[in-house]
Amino acid sequence: MTKFTALLAGTMTAALMTGAAVAETKVVGVSIPAATHGWAGGMNYHARTTIERLEAVYEDLDFVLSTASDPGAQVNDVEDMLATRNIDALVILPFESDPLTAPVQAVADAGVWVTVVDRGLSVPGIEDLYVAGDNPGFGRVSGEFMVEAMPDGGDIVVLRGIPTTIDNERVDNFTAAIEGSGINVLDMEHGNWNRDDSFTVMEDFLSKYPKIDAVWASDDDMAIGVLAAIEAAGRDDIQFVLGGAGMKEMIARTRDNDPMIPANVTYPPAMIATAIELTAVGLVSNAPVSGTFTIGSVLVTPDNAADYYYEDSPF
Amino acid sequence: MTKFTALLAGTMTAALMTGAAVAETKVVGVSIPAATHGWAGGMNYHARTTIERLEAVYEDLDFVLSTASDPGAQVNDVEDMLATRNIDALVILPFESDPLTAPVQAVADAGVWVTVVDRGLSVPGIEDLYVAGDNPGFGRVSGEFMVEAMPDGGDIVVLRGIPTTIDNERVDNFTAAIEGSGINVLDMEHGNWNRDDSFTVMEDFLSKYPKIDAVWASDDDMAIGVLAAIEAAGRDDIQFVLGGAGMKEMIARTRDNDPMIPANVTYPPAMIATAIELTAVGLVSNAPVSGTFTIGSVLVTPDNAADYYYEDSPF
Repeated sequence: MTKFTALLAGTMTAALMTGAAVAETKVVGVSIPAATHGWAGGMNYHARTTIERLEAVYEDLDFVLSTASDPGAQVNDVEDMLATRNIDALVILPFESDPLTAPVQAVADAGVWVTVVDRGLSVPGIEDLYVAGDNPGFGRVSGEFMVEAMPDGGDIVVLRGIPTTIDNERVDNFTAAIEGSGINVLDMEHGNWNRDDSFTVMEDFLSKYPKIDAVWASDDDMAIGVLAAIEAAGRDDIQFVLGGAGMKEMIARTRDNDPMIPANVTYPPAMIATAIELTAVGLVSNAPVSGTFTIGSVLVTPDNAADYYYEDSPF
Repeated sequence: MTKFTALLAGTMTAALMTGAAVAETKVVGVSIPAATHGWAGGMNYHARTTIERLEAVYEDLDFVLSTASDPGAQVNDVEDMLATRNIDALVILPFESDPLTAPVQAVADAGVWVTVVDRGLSVPGIEDLYVAGDNPGFGRVSGEFMVEAMPDGGDIVVLRGIPTTIDNERVDNFTAAIEGSGINVLDMEHGNWNRDDSFTVMEDFLSKYPKIDAVWASDDDMAIGVLAAIEAAGRDDIQFVLGGAGMKEMIARTRDNDPMIPANVTYPPAMIATAIELTAVGLVSNAPVSGTFTIGSVLVTPDNAADYYYEDSPF
C-alpha cells in the first residue's frame, strides 16, 4: 500500500464513520413519451432542462431519463428502472393509461415514490403525487378572455378537440363563461386537436357563415389550421383567433402584438418540470408533497408573453 | 480613494457590466400566525427550517418571515412587506380570511406573486398558488382505517370539530367510507378541536354507552381529551382512539406500537414548507407553479411513523 492510498483509505473510513459526511445519493427515474409531436417535444425539452438544473443544485440527486416511442417500450423502461436502476422515485407521464397501470403499481408496491403527470392511470390511488393541467380552468379562462375582447358581443365559431372528458370540461366551462355576454356561438365542430382536421372544419364554417367575428380554436395546432383556412379563403371579417397550450410560435405572435393572435391560454408541457421539481423537494426536504397539484391555465397577453416563450424549446 | 477602494470599485463595475456575474436576488415574504397553539407551533417550526434550507441552497433567494399574534398585526406585516421590503413573492397563511383579503389583493395588484396556504381569502382568484390540506381525503382515509382495524364491525363514537365546511367534508367522507362495514356510530358530537370540550363530550358518551369499541376523535387535541376521559372513568372496553393531524406525541405512540393509538392521519402543519418550497421553485426555474396543490392526508402506522416524527418541532 502506497502512502497515498493509505491516506485515502483513512479518509474514507473517517467519512463512513461520521456518516453525515457521506450523504446518501437518491435516484429519480423519469419516464416520458418521446418527442413525437409539438407538445411532447416541449415536454421532453422541459424534462431535460429540469434534470440538468436539479443535478447542478443537488449533488445527492441522480436522474435516469428514458423516452419511449410506444406504450410497450415505456413498460420496458419502467420495469428496467425498478429492476436495475435502484430508483427511489419514479416520475411518469404515461403513454396510455391501461398498459402502464400494472407496471407502475409494481413500482409503488416496491416502496418507490410515484409521481404521475397529465394522464392518470386506470386504477386510482397508485400514485403518491398527481400533477395535471386544469381543463375546466382552460375553458373558463378562454371564455373570460373572449368576453373581455368582445365587449359588444359578436358571432364566433368553436373548434373542439377529440371527443373526451377533457374536451367536455373545457367546452362546458367556456360556454358557462360566455353566457349572457352577447357572444353567440354560430357553430361548434371537432377539429380533434389536429391541424388538417381543423383546416377542413374551418373551411366548412367559412362557406356556411358569411360573417364570423372571432374563432375559439381552443388549441394552437387547431389555430394554425384555422388561420390557414382563413388565409386560403381570403376572408378579412375574422378579428382574432384564440388558440391555447402555449406553442412557441403563437406566444411569439402574441408577444409581438399580432392582432390576429391577441392571447394564449396555457396548458403547459412544462408541467413535467413541476412534477420533477416537486418530487425532488420531497427527497431533499421535510415538505409533504403527496397529493394532487392542478396546474392553473394562465392567460398570456403581450404583457407577460415573454415569461412563456422558451427560446431553446422546440414548442 | 485608497488603492483598496479603487480596486473594489473596479471589480464592482466589471461585475455590473457582465450582468450574469450578478444574479438578481429575489425576496420572498412569509407571513404566518404566531405559534399560539400546537398546530401553529409546528407550522412556525416548518416555516423556519424551510427558509433556512432554501437560503443555504439558493444564494439568490432572501426571505422575510413575520409572525403575527392577531389579524390586525398580520395586515400590518403584509403592508410593510409590500411597502418597504421589496418582495417578489408573498407566502401567507391568513389568520382570518376577511381582514387579510384586501391587503393581499393589493400585493397581487402590485405584480407580486401570491401563495395562499390552508385558509382561503374571501375573494376567489387573488392568489397565484393555493396550497391546502385535503379534508375529504382526511375523512376517507380515517374511515378506511377504521374498516380495516375492525374487520368484524363494532360500536364507535365520533367527535366532530367546530361546525364548518371543513368539518362537514371530513365527517361526510368518513361516513361514506365506513358504510356497509358493520361499524355502527353510536353517537356524534362537536368537540370543537379542543381538549377540554372533548373531555366533556367523551365523559357524556361514556356515561351513556356501557360498551364502546373505538373512538374516531378526528384530531389529536380531541384525542388527548378523549384519552383523559377514558382514563378518568377507568373504562377498558375501548380498544383504540384514532386522532389526526400528526401531533408529535401521538406519532411517537403509534411508532412505539401503543395499541390505543394504532394510527394517525396527516393534515400536516408542514404544508407551509410545501408552499414556500413551491414558491421558490417558481422563482428559480421554468416550472409553472400557479394552480392548486391539495396535500394528501396520509395514513401513518408503526411502519412509516418515523417519517412523520420531527424531533425538533414542538408539534
